[in-house]
Amino acid sequence: MSTTREWRIAARPTGRDLRPEDFSWRADAPVPGPAPGQVRVRILFLSCDPAQKGWMENADGYAAPTSVGDVMPAFGIAQVIASRAEGFAPGDCVQGALGWRDEAVLDAAALEKVTGSPTALRARLGVLGGTGLTAWFGLKTIGLPFPGDTLVVTGAAGAVGSIAGQLGRIAGCRVVGIAGGPEKCRWLTEELGFDAAIDYRADDVKARLAAAAPGGIDILWDNVGGPLLDTLLARIAMQARIVICGGIARYEQTVRDGPANYFNIVFRRATMQGFILGDHAPGFGEARRRIAALIDGGALRYREDVAEGLETAPHTLMRLFRGDNIGKLILKVADPR
Amino acid sequence: MSTTREWRIAARPTGRDLRPEDFSWRADAPVPGPAPGQVRVRILFLSCDPAQKGWMENADGYAAPTSVGDVMPAFGIAQVIASRAEGFAPGDCVQGALGWRDEAVLDAAALEKVTGSPTALRARLGVLGGTGLTAWFGLKTIGLPFPGDTLVVTGAAGAVGSIAGQLGRIAGCRVVGIAGGPEKCRWLTEELGFDAAIDYRADDVKARLAAAAPGGIDILWDNVGGPLLDTLLARIAMQARIVICGGIARYEQTVRDGPANYFNIVFRRATMQGFILGDHAPGFGEARRRIAALIDGGALRYREDVAEGLETAPHTLMRLFRGDNIGKLILKVADPR
Repeated sequence: MSTTREWRIAARPTGRDLRPEDFSWRADAPVPGPAPGQVRVRILFLSCDPAQKGWMENADGYAAPTSVGDVMPAFGIAQVIASRAEGFAPGDCVQGALGWRDEAVLDAAALEKVTGSPTALRARLGVLGGTGLTAWFGLKTIGLPFPGDTLVVTGAAGAVGSIAGQLGRIAGCRVVGIAGGPEKCRWLTEELGFDAAIDYRADDVKARLAAAAPGGIDILWDNVGGPLLDTLLARIAMQARIVICGGIARYEQTVRDGPANYFNIVFRRATMQGFILGDHAPGFGEARRRIAALIDGGALRYREDVAEGLETAPHTLMRLFRGDNIGKLILKVADPR
Repeated sequence: MSTTREWRIAARPTGRDLRPEDFSWRADAPVPGPAPGQVRVRILFLSCDPAQKGWMENADGYAAPTSVGDVMPAFGIAQVIASRAEGFAPGDCVQGALGWRDEAVLDAAALEKVTGSPTALRARLGVLGGTGLTAWFGLKTIGLPFPGDTLVVTGAAGAVGSIAGQLGRIAGCRVVGIAGGPEKCRWLTEELGFDAAIDYRADDVKARLAAAAPGGIDILWDNVGGPLLDTLLARIAMQARIVICGGIARYEQTVRDGPANYFNIVFRRATMQGFILGDHAPGFGEARRRIAALIDGGALRYREDVAEGLETAPHTLMRLFRGDNIGKLILKVADPR
């Protein structure tokens, strides 16, 4: 029996930052041969997502529950190296829930076959995958952009925020991004066509916002939560739509309060709504085609931050919570053969 | 020139409870004769509303701004005693923004003529007025009740909550009311047909809620905010609708945080929405007719808590924030002649 390297959950990081010791490394976990209906795969790319911390905590109530000792869950792209499943042959690429490891044996029914260059495969984890589709469906079903609306995006240089902001711009909105650091802000305004970018680490957010969104915020796309969400809720316009997409500030122990300005939802007749991407699965194909057309036409840009090596997985995921990445953070485990 | 007794705003109660010294009494304020287009009125009934504290603070951003020294604003019913406005004659009853005083001179264009017995006139301040219409439009446009849904109402024995809960029951919902004290809870279940009532002062709300709403909360009608809202957000069902109608807990200095569980809106694909009654003004007539028909048919009950005497106005309004009233709190200033 062959073996694989893998990372397991060693502790639940509930109510605190992730730490290296929340993960345990195993250099020689056994990999069985595939049973009927299964494939054995080599993992190529792993997606790094804020939700992974929630999975470790069993916090979200919609992902499969995890236990301490489980292989760390992660979505990704892999290549089949042995198959006992009809329609899957060695060399095929697949997408699905893979985990932090080099090799795995998985039920083929839970995998989707994908094709294309390494670039196209990586895009399936980002702009044409969970993050791009999240931006698409959140904006389409909750944000309801209309020409002239002001869209404010927090975590704007992240994988979801950068696409949500650009889709808003393409829909005719005035777009203001909030991100950490001058490099991210420059990227937003100079390359992605945001009308303004506010550096929450250096700028006076309230003053900059008053100047950048003088008529208030028609669409608030929030990836962050915490005090920043509160500041923005104070400036929503009438009939504002508030897309609660993420709350990365919530992952820190220090931010456990809700937004005190939630009551502005009443004064401004606003709507705050949540959504789960999986509910929109029937529309994924069409959305992917439209996003790809925007990319091909040059209207939509995306960026990937590709780290390398399974051994760096904990360190790479922790970068996400420090806001170190620009665009979609991906861990490359191996090259396709 | 004749005079009137009146209460004025003496201090803004921002971030703290109302106090008697927030109001100043004047026994002989001058009342001019009406100018063309104006009427002079005797005030009969004044509505007591949580929003009045917000008006004193200029907190809401949609009512006319107040200043310290202004007559305390209040909606009510009055009777015309002198008129220089076409279509308004002495003896006519009118409804509008009147203020805490015995007599006032007002622009007739801002008043609505109303007719009927004292009972019918008072109903225009409650079940057929702002509070009943708030229940109607909040439930109709945001709550979206459907047979079998579980509706949970906070402040359920108040003027809005008691109507919202009954409308939900009539719409086929299972209705759980949360109120303070056994008398209110008995009224909800024994007279208004609520399926369950939880006494937040005496009961273990979480445990009672788990038993009374085992499938979660489909519609959350919140009049309270604060920690109770947080407790309820933890139990919303998938696709829940959260009607943010009021936040009386927010008026206390001690409750300034928002709901930490707001993020459950994402996990449950829920919608939290606010509304302002005035936006629905074109539908008031039809809604009043339908509410009146439900009352006449015996399906909908309402209760008034009528205090007497202009001199008691500050004390009466403060009762509202202590939760002392059951049903609509009204101050009777004078009998119609």
